[in-house]
Amino acid sequence: MTPLTERPAWRALAALAARPQPHLRELLHEPGRGDYARLAAAGIELDFTRQRIDHRIYDALLALAREAGVEAQRDAMFAGEPINATEGRAVLHVALRGGAEPQPPWGNSLAAEIEVELSRACTFAEAVREGRVRGFSGEPIRHVVSLGIGGSDLGPRMVCEALAAHASDALALHFVSNPDPAQLYAVLRRADPAATLFLVSSKTFTTHDTLINAASARQWLLGSGCPPQQVAAQFAAITANAECAIASGYLPQQVFRFWDWVGGRYSVWSAIGLPVMIAAGPRQFRALLDGARAMDAHFRGAPLARNLPVALALCGIWNRNFLGAPTQLIAPYAVPLARLPAYLQQQDMESSGKRVDTGGNVVDYGTGPIVWGGLGLDGQHAYFQLLHQGMHLVPADLIGTRRCEVPLPQARQHHQLVLANLLAQASALSCGRTHEETLAALLASGLPPDEAARLAPHRTFPGNVPVSLLWLDTLDAASLGALIALYEHKVFVQAAIWDIHAYDQWGVELGKTIAAEMQACLTRREAPGGLDPSAKATLAALID
Amino acid sequence: MTPLTERPAWRALAALAARPQPHLRELLHEPGRGDYARLAAAGIELDFTRQRIDHRIYDALLALAREAGVEAQRDAMFAGEPINATEGRAVLHVALRGGAEPQPPWGNSLAAEIEVELSRACTFAEAVREGRVRGFSGEPIRHVVSLGIGGSDLGPRMVCEALAAHASDALALHFVSNPDPAQLYAVLRRADPAATLFLVSSKTFTTHDTLINAASARQWLLGSGCPPQQVAAQFAAITANAECAIASGYLPQQVFRFWDWVGGRYSVWSAIGLPVMIAAGPRQFRALLDGARAMDAHFRGAPLARNLPVALALCGIWNRNFLGAPTQLIAPYAVPLARLPAYLQQQDMESSGKRVDTGGNVVDYGTGPIVWGGLGLDGQHAYFQLLHQGMHLVPADLIGTRRCEVPLPQARQHHQLVLANLLAQASALSCGRTHEETLAALLASGLPPDEAARLAPHRTFPGNVPVSLLWLDTLDAASLGALIALYEHKVFVQAAIWDIHAYDQWGVELGKTIAAEMQACLTRREAPGGLDPSAKATLAALID
Repeated sequence: MTPLTERPAWRALAALAARPQPHLRELLHEPGRGDYARLAAAGIELDFTRQRIDHRIYDALLALAREAGVEAQRDAMFAGEPINATEGRAVLHVALRGGAEPQPPWGNSLAAEIEVELSRACTFAEAVREGRVRGFSGEPIRHVVSLGIGGSDLGPRMVCEALAAHASDALALHFVSNPDPAQLYAVLRRADPAATLFLVSSKTFTTHDTLINAASARQWLLGSGCPPQQVAAQFAAITANAECAIASGYLPQQVFRFWDWVGGRYSVWSAIGLPVMIAAGPRQFRALLDGARAMDAHFRGAPLARNLPVALALCGIWNRNFLGAPTQLIAPYAVPLARLPAYLQQQDMESSGKRVDTGGNVVDYGTGPIVWGGLGLDGQHAYFQLLHQGMHLVPADLIGTRRCEVPLPQARQHHQLVLANLLAQASALSCGRTHEETLAALLASGLPPDEAARLAPHRTFPGNVPVSLLWLDTLDAASLGALIALYEHKVFVQAAIWDIHAYDQWGVELGKTIAAEMQACLTRREAPGGLDPSAKATLAALID
Repeated sequence: MTPLTERPAWRALAALAARPQPHLRELLHEPGRGDYARLAAAGIELDFTRQRIDHRIYDALLALAREAGVEAQRDAMFAGEPINATEGRAVLHVALRGGAEPQPPWGNSLAAEIEVELSRACTFAEAVREGRVRGFSGEPIRHVVSLGIGGSDLGPRMVCEALAAHASDALALHFVSNPDPAQLYAVLRRADPAATLFLVSSKTFTTHDTLINAASARQWLLGSGCPPQQVAAQFAAITANAECAIASGYLPQQVFRFWDWVGGRYSVWSAIGLPVMIAAGPRQFRALLDGARAMDAHFRGAPLARNLPVALALCGIWNRNFLGAPTQLIAPYAVPLARLPAYLQQQDMESSGKRVDTGGNVVDYGTGPIVWGGLGLDGQHAYFQLLHQGMHLVPADLIGTRRCEVPLPQARQHHQLVLANLLAQASALSCGRTHEETLAALLASGLPPDEAARLAPHRTFPGNVPVSLLWLDTLDAASLGALIALYEHKVFVQAAIWDIHAYDQWGVELGKTIAAEMQACLTRREAPGGLDPSAKATLAALID
């Protein structure tokens, strides 16, 4: 196959990028722009009119996607082919979205198996919600502590926070991801041992960082008067290695399974979503799946030019490969989505943070960007300074909700202020303010000419920052499901174009190996000769 | 003055960077490396042996700092000269650290004024802690809600979380930064109106995002039975514009002042730290100041080569300007420091996100990096994949604590696991694993040769990622104060070298202006003709 950078579409794009480009200020006036650069599906609108893409560039990007065989690769994923080739597995998190399709591409028997596990988890969640799961003294569970890290934490935590308006006050939900004992202790010191349930989430059920928290939780229960034979009843396991959990003493009826073809960063749709089922309820969880399934159907069926995940991916390709932007900002203008940037950071960077193509060759083009961000309005009062006047080109996805349903008397004014800020940043980032405009504004404000001239460079905004707006009508479970699936498929399309493996994560392996060696050194209190001089000195200081 | 990139030290550095550099794997063995690349002061150790800097490069970087007049600029800041030249102000957050110095460079009368305000705030905090501040029905305050955004939020929130082990269980502390009503509502629905105190923090006391939350909080109190004349008693203001707060009805004895020469991102040392004084207590707050002051004394007195802020800054300059790294990762290996990356993001990016020098010329060298990050151990299970095997050079600061004082029975094992991971990442990032080593490991694990050859490129780690280790002996208020001050002075040194204004933030201005216009459009429900076509379409959809 022709190398990516030598294919016709890539070369056409490189040629377009090399020509002088109009500033976004002018590009916004391109005739017909709103027709191709504003798309909607599954309750989400994507507005990429503020990307530095004109209709010729968009056409060339679509050609690139076609040349890369994005559609065939997409169909292979949905058909359950082993596209995770370095681990020899299918990639079927889309199957977890379930639904009533009579002949799903992954087959009816898998669909049935998925539904069985989902029902088991929902039934258990209902029992917890209704106070039928009890602690060792017969009290109903009031504290649920999720123990899990990475994919076993980011998804359920983000979704629980996003849907917090649906959570019952009767149950307190806590997430402990990190083995730093400060995190577990902060939860245990306020929890009631007789009314606490621990959910232990680990795909392999061998994650040290999680198992040490589970062990300490068990000690805490025993030390708080829980009879040894009743400890297991206050634990549930969520894993793709049910045998291991059961062998470790978990009650089989409280072990919830998922499958090895579900990557950690795609596992929130499986039993890993149990904290969501407990906090927001099974109905909300199924609405989340429905929303994702609607986006799947759109991704499978819509023509490339009108396909949201494809368009979002192509904006990313243009910014990364042809404008040279190393990062991508995610800025929600809705507080319940505060953890979405951290979630997408894993989803995108763990998938696309690769430097060899599927054939094992080191690539000569940029792959996945650094994804970062946080709440947009808080960012405006912090690091947005650099977006406006720094030296980095930082493409930004601003995510808003058209309506707001918070029962505060002044909620409407609050929400209008949020919307006004979102619109203002979109405009300021893309259009900026020229030196001439700035000078005129300073003179108009009454500054003497020499002072205005001195200050104008410091108060000029170059603009031309590419911005996408993503709109949810309102923040409900279905829109959230569609939004997450949109970004999942965006990552898929980009990886298909870059020809990289998006479903493995070998980059975590070496750290695990060395950590085991280091832990042995710390336990034995020795710094062996084979270590590098820095490691040796650090260890010596710690052992001292 | 000679342009930066034409000065001898810059040219010497460029020449060093152009020569073939050894891989960190070899560089670690440089003789005498630990002597110059491991420094300690004020309870912090900085180990930059894993930076791609040898002794010649370090010497050249020190020459660059000298040529830039870092020492004279530092002395000008401490002497209260108006180094914030675009706003015509001194920059004296260092004076807020107080202390017993008989002749502080900023003068005794300012020192006395600062101590008066600090004492007033501490006295009020003690009154809240001891239950002597009461709500309208006579109950002691049990909920404290901080309303503030940006610098009025990030500092106190981060420090309160870091010192949470010192917090009393009798008081619940909440932070509401964002005008999205979901955030305020989530706090109010669980708070008791008769026992809630609101702290309204705004330097100018004109921040819409904060004042709208204060207005809704007031409505909530009134709607919950608080007599109108008693509302003011449940509010305190923290501001540099006390007159405005008092004119708005705040009780003068509950208005706490700071000064216009305190930037928002440096304000945690002032009355903006009131949430810390309330949650952790005035004694802890003063220990925080003491730690910062110890770092100030080190910064003012230590020779450049042994000066922690200078060394940290020079690592940043090398990575940014000579290795071309666009970003800087901050990864604490201590859960109480979870918000430090967001705090440093503002501190650094709002200061150094500039593209014109102090003379108003657009610069031809990189200025402030994009600062991002999060808890190291959580990151390992998420985006660290990209650091190890992606295409970006991401310098990383890993921050650890030598001791851990959490009262969990297994705390020692937990902490050893955390330390082992920190050490392992430092080693894996800097040293990597070659293709040959990977192939050998795969063959040793029993893979057939062709399978091992196919997988090896996907499981190779290039390494050579620059890493600094920052060690606190333990996470106490004094170490935390020193750590924050270390990064403040790092930013100062970098800005001095880059010749940029680090104490203004004009990049927030344009967004505010446009937001006011957009809000008027939303209120009047019209999309006027002067708007760009995208803004017009978006507004129309919102008004519809």
